[in-house]
Amino acid sequence: MPSYKAPVEDMMFVLKDVLGAGQVFSAIPAYADIDTDVVENVLEEAGRFCSEILQPLNMSGDAEGCRLENGVVRTPKGFAQAYAAFSDAGWGGLSASPDHGGQGLPRTLQILVDEMLSASNLSFGLFPGLTRGAYEAIEAHGDEALKALYLPKMIAGTWTGAMALTEAGAGSDLGMLKATAVPRGDGSYTVTGSKIFISSGDHDMAENVIHLVLARLPDAPAGTKGISLFLCPKYLVDRDGTPGARNAISVGALEHKMGIHAQPTCVMNYDGCRGWLVGEAHRGLAAMFTMMNAERLFVGVQGLGVADASYQTAATYARERLQGRATGVAGTAPIIAHPDVRRMLLSMLSFIEAGRALSLFTALEMDKEKCHPDPEIRRASGGLVALLTPVIKAALTDFGFEAAVLGQQVLGGHGYIREWGQEQFVRDARIAMIYEGTNGIQAQDLVLRKLPLDGGRPVRMFLGLIRDTLEQADGIAEAASQCVAVREALAHLDQVTARLIDGDLVASDERNAAATDYLRLFALVTFGWLWLRMTLTVLNMGANANAHARRKIAVGRFFADRILPQAGALARQIGAGGAPIMALATENF
Amino acid sequence: MPSYKAPVEDMMFVLKDVLGAGQVFSAIPAYADIDTDVVENVLEEAGRFCSEILQPLNMSGDAEGCRLENGVVRTPKGFAQAYAAFSDAGWGGLSASPDHGGQGLPRTLQILVDEMLSASNLSFGLFPGLTRGAYEAIEAHGDEALKALYLPKMIAGTWTGAMALTEAGAGSDLGMLKATAVPRGDGSYTVTGSKIFISSGDHDMAENVIHLVLARLPDAPAGTKGISLFLCPKYLVDRDGTPGARNAISVGALEHKMGIHAQPTCVMNYDGCRGWLVGEAHRGLAAMFTMMNAERLFVGVQGLGVADASYQTAATYARERLQGRATGVAGTAPIIAHPDVRRMLLSMLSFIEAGRALSLFTALEMDKEKCHPDPEIRRASGGLVALLTPVIKAALTDFGFEAAVLGQQVLGGHGYIREWGQEQFVRDARIAMIYEGTNGIQAQDLVLRKLPLDGGRPVRMFLGLIRDTLEQADGIAEAASQCVAVREALAHLDQVTARLIDGDLVASDERNAAATDYLRLFALVTFGWLWLRMTLTVLNMGANANAHARRKIAVGRFFADRILPQAGALARQIGAGGAPIMALATENF
Repeated sequence: MPSYKAPVEDMMFVLKDVLGAGQVFSAIPAYADIDTDVVENVLEEAGRFCSEILQPLNMSGDAEGCRLENGVVRTPKGFAQAYAAFSDAGWGGLSASPDHGGQGLPRTLQILVDEMLSASNLSFGLFPGLTRGAYEAIEAHGDEALKALYLPKMIAGTWTGAMALTEAGAGSDLGMLKATAVPRGDGSYTVTGSKIFISSGDHDMAENVIHLVLARLPDAPAGTKGISLFLCPKYLVDRDGTPGARNAISVGALEHKMGIHAQPTCVMNYDGCRGWLVGEAHRGLAAMFTMMNAERLFVGVQGLGVADASYQTAATYARERLQGRATGVAGTAPIIAHPDVRRMLLSMLSFIEAGRALSLFTALEMDKEKCHPDPEIRRASGGLVALLTPVIKAALTDFGFEAAVLGQQVLGGHGYIREWGQEQFVRDARIAMIYEGTNGIQAQDLVLRKLPLDGGRPVRMFLGLIRDTLEQADGIAEAASQCVAVREALAHLDQVTARLIDGDLVASDERNAAATDYLRLFALVTFGWLWLRMTLTVLNMGANANAHARRKIAVGRFFADRILPQAGALARQIGAGGAPIMALATENF
Repeated sequence: MPSYKAPVEDMMFVLKDVLGAGQVFSAIPAYADIDTDVVENVLEEAGRFCSEILQPLNMSGDAEGCRLENGVVRTPKGFAQAYAAFSDAGWGGLSASPDHGGQGLPRTLQILVDEMLSASNLSFGLFPGLTRGAYEAIEAHGDEALKALYLPKMIAGTWTGAMALTEAGAGSDLGMLKATAVPRGDGSYTVTGSKIFISSGDHDMAENVIHLVLARLPDAPAGTKGISLFLCPKYLVDRDGTPGARNAISVGALEHKMGIHAQPTCVMNYDGCRGWLVGEAHRGLAAMFTMMNAERLFVGVQGLGVADASYQTAATYARERLQGRATGVAGTAPIIAHPDVRRMLLSMLSFIEAGRALSLFTALEMDKEKCHPDPEIRRASGGLVALLTPVIKAALTDFGFEAAVLGQQVLGGHGYIREWGQEQFVRDARIAMIYEGTNGIQAQDLVLRKLPLDGGRPVRMFLGLIRDTLEQADGIAEAASQCVAVREALAHLDQVTARLIDGDLVASDERNAAATDYLRLFALVTFGWLWLRMTLTVLNMGANANAHARRKIAVGRFFADRILPQAGALARQIGAGGAPIMALATENF
């Protein structure tokens, strides 16, 4: 059986020691009185909840799955109770606005709790995750009446949220969607259409489900500029917030998926249901996009969380399982003594800790973007968040899946069967590379939209941060080999970036052909940078660094020596341009 | 719904045009009268069987799975009928010796049929695959009485085979196995023990199941040198070959697996069952190893087959699915017009065709090793087969899995649900990286045993073949850029190989630390070489090359430009040595 322990010590190391979150918070009035000891306590508490309540339901939820019975979705045994406990403890409103009953804590803290939720039970974590996405959209774009009626119950977890974007003919290309909304003359709309792949679309865990549905008004222009966003509750809500009559919303089917079986992914039918416009008419996509950064960070962290859960199981197994002989071990050795097993575990670990540092770095920038008193800092942080969002979503889920596959491999045949839960992690992690915009879409977003953003200012600023760290590391012997590796990888990234922004690879087919390799290169350099920052942090601690902190130096070195060389290969692949990709005629595939 | 068409034209291109199998066969008396037209007919026929009979059972078999009912394993609906049709058509004995009723065709042909079986229904393919493994072991090591009694029925498919090696405490380390065999004084033995992960361990498709069980005799030395091989039939067989009384063999449980659900992977209990020694006492492992090359080639080809099935579905979907705008396409474009989708498809295709060429190259060497009249050629071929076996097993299953993941990604959300079958390919392909020796074990086999084999002669010979092709390509303009890429990658491989054989990386921890990256580097260079050979073959055809043949040039160029650069990164990772892998203390993982 797998077990999961939230890595609070590692989290606090990055938050406090590497990123200096305490100082950042102290400059933000809304967070000025947040003490890092309090943060640690919250994380310990969240970790306990995840280990004790959610993780034990992960395998049973996968085996049982959700069922659709006479139009009602039944979640697996224990999920409703766990969700009630989660809501009662206030976890659903951790980072929500105190105006509507939330605790008002920073995104930085939220994202660490999201990692724990994803590590212990990804299917479960989607319920509060989507609820938060929905209430953030309503908070940002809804009118005061909608906010007053819906936000308190959603933040309290009494009602959950769902996002209904995708239709059978309109996946990545939302401009093609066909759902309609017609004004009823009373301020509400009649919404009609069918949506697929709707996570948390329906279930038996909460009193109401609040759907945010993309649809077209009668006078809507074609394409993405004619899409509006509607709030459609499963049960219509009285003025005092009491759910009453059933709205014309039904579950057409549950999708049969590779994984996240405990999560009800629904085909939803909106059969002339009542809905309320959120934000401006025809501006629904813009409304969705304002919360996209947070949603994509959340999905990236799912990849990270599952990778850590898989790592913890693999490391435990590798210490216990005796097979073969190894240098320096008398008798049969635990497989962790074998170099190839260590290589797999270190590949996982070097991704997980760097990925966590990246997600925290970005969450902190989101907190600054939202709440910092200095508008210049808000603007700069916003640029970094926009730039890093596709990197986090795609790289953390790609590497996260690869890590889960390695974690499965460490267990050999025992990784392929249910027993240890490793095969579930692989199946569950796989979805994160697809939903919330496939990783190919993320790569295009990075290369086509984020690199040229604001005249290239965010990417220049970010690469500048890497150069700053390299300068700080200059002359520090224990970091020298990492510096060499990062400097070389950065040179590759610099050169390719220039070619994509205004060089020979600027044409859109060239940028598209480069996109996925470029995003991976960008992520590798970023991870290398964060490992260097972690290493420098430990070295600065001197004698105060404990063994747990000092292990960062060994893992950082592994990453620089045994993973980062891939940066050079990716730069060459990108440099070869789009011609080798475009040459083959469509009919010859 | 997925569909599969056996790529007979591509197969014949490699077999006939690239490898010149016709000439090779004509030099081998046993195969001298094999006409390549006959081969093509056999392949067409096999392809039809796979497309029409086996592929339609693949998804239903996965959904239904096997069940254990009162000790009896039930295979999914349609499997028993399909197996009867398969055996009636003689497919089970394709490459088996005519002495016992086989058709005596070359391994080269067998491996192509194996690829089709794996592509259309991996779970099904394991039944005849394991039967062949078992009858080849009996043929090579059994005494005449055993052969006469068991081989004809196994070759005819009336009885199937199973290999019982693994125990709960003895996976990769067979020396730890505990099953026992005690002589009964009548020439037979009492075999006792429990085995796990036994593919085709029991089922309802054939009259009898012949288990080859590894166990220890009472006087056995410890470790791998005290293991013997026993034939234990599910039903005891009369002298005339009629199955009679049930042997004391039972199914303890079916494993709950990530995939290959239609394949009954059993926990088997041998409760004092009767068995017969196959080969010499204490030499069971050697007996198993003589057929290991064939089994590992078979498993490698599973990765290849599933990758091709996934590719075919992804390419079909990409041509049909309309999403977004693309250069040169009016209106909404099929996603195959998007560079990133083409990149995914080309990554798959460039692996599949090179992987097939490698499997065929090796199978042809196996045919020469077994049947060529010239003992020097037999020896040289044997060396190449030994060298390439771990490469095929690991690289074809690693790249095959990666290809299936890409094929799933092409379909976005539709790849994550059952509908198109792509998620099943990922789940099924995953096992091939684990069983028949994990890919980590394969990499160790390559680096620790195969590189130093025969004083390094096989590896030198193989690298010499690559150099020969580069020389042939010299001065041919259309192959020039591929030549540059292959020459550079080969230089990396040469240099690292020398360091591993007798240079600074010769210590066993260093070789183990290098193993997985080295195997991947070896495979990439080999694929690059085979793409160059395919390109040269097409160029030599001149005006006779049709569009289907000419597409090889485009795919080969893609591989050289956009995949092969990884060779340089792998060489650097290996060059960094084992220190970064060994530095972290076990307790700090």
